[in-house]
Amino acid sequence: MTLSTDKPPSATPQEHLDAVTRLLAQQRLVEDFVRRQDGDGEKRGLVESIVHKQNLAELQKRLDGLHPADVAFILEGLPLEERLVVWGLVRSDRDGEILLEVSDAVRDTLLADMDSAEIVAAAQNLDADEIADLAPDLPVDVVQDIIEAQDVHERAQLQSALSYPEGSVGALMDFEVVSIREDVTCEVALRYLRRYDELPGQTDALFVVDRDDHLRGILPLKRLLVSDPEIEVATLTDRDVVSFSPDSEAEEAAKAFERYDLVCAPVVSADGRVIARLTVDAVLDFVRESQEAQELAKVGLREEEDLFSSVWLSAKNRGPWLALNLCTAFVASRVVGAFEGSIEKLAALAALMPIVAGIGGNSGNQTSTLIVRALALDQVSAANARRLLAKELGIGVLNGALWGSVLGIVAWLLYRNVALGGVMALAMMLNLVVAALAGLFIPLAMERFGRDPAIGSSVFLTFVTDSMGFFIFLGLATVFLL
Amino acid sequence: MTLSTDKPPSATPQEHLDAVTRLLAQQRLVEDFVRRQDGDGEKRGLVESIVHKQNLAELQKRLDGLHPADVAFILEGLPLEERLVVWGLVRSDRDGEILLEVSDAVRDTLLADMDSAEIVAAAQNLDADEIADLAPDLPVDVVQDIIEAQDVHERAQLQSALSYPEGSVGALMDFEVVSIREDVTCEVALRYLRRYDELPGQTDALFVVDRDDHLRGILPLKRLLVSDPEIEVATLTDRDVVSFSPDSEAEEAAKAFERYDLVCAPVVSADGRVIARLTVDAVLDFVRESQEAQELAKVGLREEEDLFSSVWLSAKNRGPWLALNLCTAFVASRVVGAFEGSIEKLAALAALMPIVAGIGGNSGNQTSTLIVRALALDQVSAANARRLLAKELGIGVLNGALWGSVLGIVAWLLYRNVALGGVMALAMMLNLVVAALAGLFIPLAMERFGRDPAIGSSVFLTFVTDSMGFFIFLGLATVFLL
Repeated sequence: MTLSTDKPPSATPQEHLDAVTRLLAQQRLVEDFVRRQDGDGEKRGLVESIVHKQNLAELQKRLDGLHPADVAFILEGLPLEERLVVWGLVRSDRDGEILLEVSDAVRDTLLADMDSAEIVAAAQNLDADEIADLAPDLPVDVVQDIIEAQDVHERAQLQSALSYPEGSVGALMDFEVVSIREDVTCEVALRYLRRYDELPGQTDALFVVDRDDHLRGILPLKRLLVSDPEIEVATLTDRDVVSFSPDSEAEEAAKAFERYDLVCAPVVSADGRVIARLTVDAVLDFVRESQEAQELAKVGLREEEDLFSSVWLSAKNRGPWLALNLCTAFVASRVVGAFEGSIEKLAALAALMPIVAGIGGNSGNQTSTLIVRALALDQVSAANARRLLAKELGIGVLNGALWGSVLGIVAWLLYRNVALGGVMALAMMLNLVVAALAGLFIPLAMERFGRDPAIGSSVFLTFVTDSMGFFIFLGLATVFLL
Repeated sequence: MTLSTDKPPSATPQEHLDAVTRLLAQQRLVEDFVRRQDGDGEKRGLVESIVHKQNLAELQKRLDGLHPADVAFILEGLPLEERLVVWGLVRSDRDGEILLEVSDAVRDTLLADMDSAEIVAAAQNLDADEIADLAPDLPVDVVQDIIEAQDVHERAQLQSALSYPEGSVGALMDFEVVSIREDVTCEVALRYLRRYDELPGQTDALFVVDRDDHLRGILPLKRLLVSDPEIEVATLTDRDVVSFSPDSEAEEAAKAFERYDLVCAPVVSADGRVIARLTVDAVLDFVRESQEAQELAKVGLREEEDLFSSVWLSAKNRGPWLALNLCTAFVASRVVGAFEGSIEKLAALAALMPIVAGIGGNSGNQTSTLIVRALALDQVSAANARRLLAKELGIGVLNGALWGSVLGIVAWLLYRNVALGGVMALAMMLNLVVAALAGLFIPLAMERFGRDPAIGSSVFLTFVTDSMGFFIFLGLATVFLL
């Protein structure tokens, strides 16, 4: 990636981070060195402060030249102490835009370093939708101060933006709408546009409205640019427009952006008035963020843990998940406990049982991953559920017969016990069928009960395949071998 | 989501799918009914063919009115037989754009239904970059036919597009570049643009070049639109431009698009000439697809399995992963096998050992998920590796002490055996430390050896935490309890 055309290729964000780390380390060395010198305190202090200032000035200059997203990257990559040094050097009028770019965990550490007045000042440089993004991380009274510092128009927008829950279009939209009446000529439209210094970012179309701001269609800039100035806007207007309600789910909007290759789409109220817009940059951020949040949620992590969070905070973050898994593991362990008598007689059972349980878990997770994906793509319906069931059961039986036989033979050879091999093979097959059923029904049930099937499915699934795996294998062994 | 402004809100893709399914079911009912009637074959055939035609005509009309992405959605949601009926009804000039929208697995089934001539004809309606996207799924001789059917200019573009590997910018870029010289006025630029019927989609800026096509900067349309026509393009040109090489990694480009909110960026050759462009719609598709591929790869699935794939194909797709996990589970089982003597004496060990192993796996997966994410964000460096190690070990000890104690007490109460409780607690703590180390080093090692740490980490990790969990617990028990 090259960031410039005239100058030699400038640095990547990673290189900026390395450079800043180096400058910070240098400064620490110099400080240590000065501190270790003898001599009178005043002179030492003077030298220290000069060196300090030089270093910081260089750092500050570097930071001033960077895109807010690059400064955010650097802040993310630094341990807390160094992070706050850098944060102190950022020009205060850039605070707001940088706060928007960092992750929640890092934002918390930066906000903790600012007083209310600084936060309110930072918010002054942001748009209503951007302030709304920050608001959940701010103390209630600071949010109140920010709202009061806005003018009437901005305040209404801010209150509107604040009223929509995370995951809705309302939480992603912004208010930089450029709309135009359909009964004017392109010439007039262009003259109207020239009143702007520059159109808002991501504007690839004007929203065409009637006199009451009802959406009539859109006029793509790429069409306006190549058209005869005398033509009326109405003639060029696209009537087949994808628009959203602020209450729509952001995930659905993201799918529409992908499907129809949108750059910018109008957000309209229930009565059809244009109230805001949704842009592809917000959608792209949303897609990436929800992907990351899901990755983390799958192993029981909330987003709020940065790489340098304290051990204590991190342990607290991860603890509940371990506790939950401990409970399910404990129940599975009690299933084994019920067969302790059998295990005492044939300890080989203890060695073989984790295989039956484990492969069941692997297989079930394959099924549930496919089902979760199909649910996300709206491809599972009552009409095809039976077909899916037949398919998954078929695969379970087929894989179970195959790998069960392999393992049954291995167990037979290992322990010179044909019956043990047979029990092993049968248990494997049955547990793969259990896994197929669990992998299919657990995500469906979670979806039905309004939970995100991508997140909790695997705990439940492992619980079922472990407990049932132990039960089936040890149960069959008790019946047939002892 | 609303797809229209003048008409009442039109249907969602899901509603289209339901309607098509209904039409197909209706037709099948009618066919069955007619077939069951007595009467001479000719008359029956006539009735059948009339009903058939009416139904198909209605379906065809519906399909013609849909966006290619919506037709693709319908094809994805139908079982093979119905899918091919619908595919046969799609107007052949739309085949190409629809093939582009469906998933690889479904594309294979559609291509299998077409002969070479049809495929070559479908490709005629596509751009070079789009053909290159399809090419990996086509027989080599068909690709050759397609290349030969292109004119010289298109052929050069196609060969260029075909030469870049998946995951590179070259594989995502397209050739719809609109460039302009910097020494002309905006007036001239606008007149030049009017030669287009409409600018290519996702064009939010013109690429400014010198007479040899070297990139000099970009001119955002939003600025061109509001500028005085007499101003020279050079004056308005942005010199700080994000551009890419066709060899750049697509993932890096995607990060740049997110970071700098890009809509469209130039792709330049090594000598600085503009050769293509990268647009946000391609980036958004790439982000979503690589996310999905990764989800599937994590449980050992390749992308090529659609919801209605045959049991046999699916079992083949999932088998290797189960085999791999069988091997690791087998090794872990041999660790237990080594302690069969101890288990015979104290069967409680068999019941408790899965807990130690399981919680180790959960905890290690938390660590490795965070490390994989930090690696993806370029936040792990030699400088902070030691700090990370200290943090993860700290968390392992803390959580180990906490949950080890809880479980130790439970084991003690359950089996009325203090020493067993102590061994349980100690084993838990040690295995959580092992898990922290494995969760940190396995992804780092995979990254070092050029493998995707997001994919294989969890198999290795579970292998380590299972084997070591069994070994530590049973080993301690053998030493201290027996």
